[in-house]
Amino acid sequence: MQYQNPILTVDIVILTLQDGRLRVALMPRHEEPFAGLAMLPGGYVHGDSSAGKVDKSTTHAALRILKQKLGFAPSHLEQVYTESGPTRDPRGWSASVVYLALHEFAVVDALVQAGKASLHDVHPQPSLPALAFDHKLLIQSALARLKAKATYSTIVAHLLPPVFRLTDLRQAYELVCGTTENKANFRRKMLAANALVATELLTGGVGRPAEGYRLREDLVTIEGLISGC
Amino acid sequence: MQYQNPILTVDIVILTLQDGRLRVALMPRHEEPFAGLAMLPGGYVHGDSSAGKVDKSTTHAALRILKQKLGFAPSHLEQVYTESGPTRDPRGWSASVVYLALHEFAVVDALVQAGKASLHDVHPQPSLPALAFDHKLLIQSALARLKAKATYSTIVAHLLPPVFRLTDLRQAYELVCGTTENKANFRRKMLAANALVATELLTGGVGRPAEGYRLREDLVTIEGLISGC
Repeated sequence: MQYQNPILTVDIVILTLQDGRLRVALMPRHEEPFAGLAMLPGGYVHGDSSAGKVDKSTTHAALRILKQKLGFAPSHLEQVYTESGPTRDPRGWSASVVYLALHEFAVVDALVQAGKASLHDVHPQPSLPALAFDHKLLIQSALARLKAKATYSTIVAHLLPPVFRLTDLRQAYELVCGTTENKANFRRKMLAANALVATELLTGGVGRPAEGYRLREDLVTIEGLISGC
Repeated sequence: MQYQNPILTVDIVILTLQDGRLRVALMPRHEEPFAGLAMLPGGYVHGDSSAGKVDKSTTHAALRILKQKLGFAPSHLEQVYTESGPTRDPRGWSASVVYLALHEFAVVDALVQAGKASLHDVHPQPSLPALAFDHKLLIQSALARLKAKATYSTIVAHLLPPVFRLTDLRQAYELVCGTTENKANFRRKMLAANALVATELLTGGVGRPAEGYRLREDLVTIEGLISGC
């Protein structure tokens, strides 16, 4: 019997922020195994041309699948880890490279309105439907990564629109980390790190117009940003 | 043409500490591709029984390979990330799950004395031979993980013997991080975290006998342990 390579897939945990709730995007699964359950967007890595264009890496596979299945390119995408084993997929021994994708609500909501995805609370109490494969575990792992990186980086800003208020950013960190941050301290640390660029006055919402900021780059490290996340 | 799954391997970056130098263990590669070069210990994940006993996960594959090829079980093993692409292995599209393994010098040195492995400096100036595949990149990624985790965890202790002096531990952190730590501060943070267990007085070496410590568990998180690693 010739040796068969294991199955290699990617699965993407898309998180966004809706009205002070952290939510994950799921898709309906139509095919076996697990037909009728909800699933993370994901699929096979294309390692040979019989499946179509060959992926340059698992990260490119994740971007291709998000584009093909959802028509969507996330504001931030990073590899979390690889889950694997003989029983997680009834079709055979499989490894899935798990990705964390973050994006503002309006764009993810458009996918929901188009019937392509549904949004579910993950925090503080998860309210998830029955999930295919070990996707519940994959969501938990992606959440742990988001929390870990929130303590020392600007990652949380990718849950907001490209231009945001410092207040919105602080509240997003508080939500992800389950902490209460001192307003002045948070502002000072964020501005001292030179992580943000002031853009325009934001009007709308309650209160006076406020300074709008955008990220200077994808991720900036800020040591000791949040304690106890 | 039937779709072929990509190649799935694991590669393990074994690091240890020898006379104040951080060193990586390499093996000679005898087979093509890259015969004659040095390589990280690694191999195929066994996803079906034609190759032998089926691995329970990529982590179990890494442990199996370390045992089979080196007769060795590391003090600490963790998954770093998965490197992948169409050209990194001339045999086909491949993904390798990269692991970081840490162990005390005496045991790794026994592998060297037995002719199974060789040790090479990685820090501060790498002195590596010509390496098979993209193993130089994999070593860099594992080093980056070690440094990142050194800032907030007891991971560095796994480079030392099971029982060590606080001075040895501090010097190991200084070496990994390229910093100079205040002796009293380091001691205070390490003991306050309840990460260590006092064991016995250690004699030998220079100076008076010193308190010996061992890790209470594999990894303990200590916020703000090292700054600027």
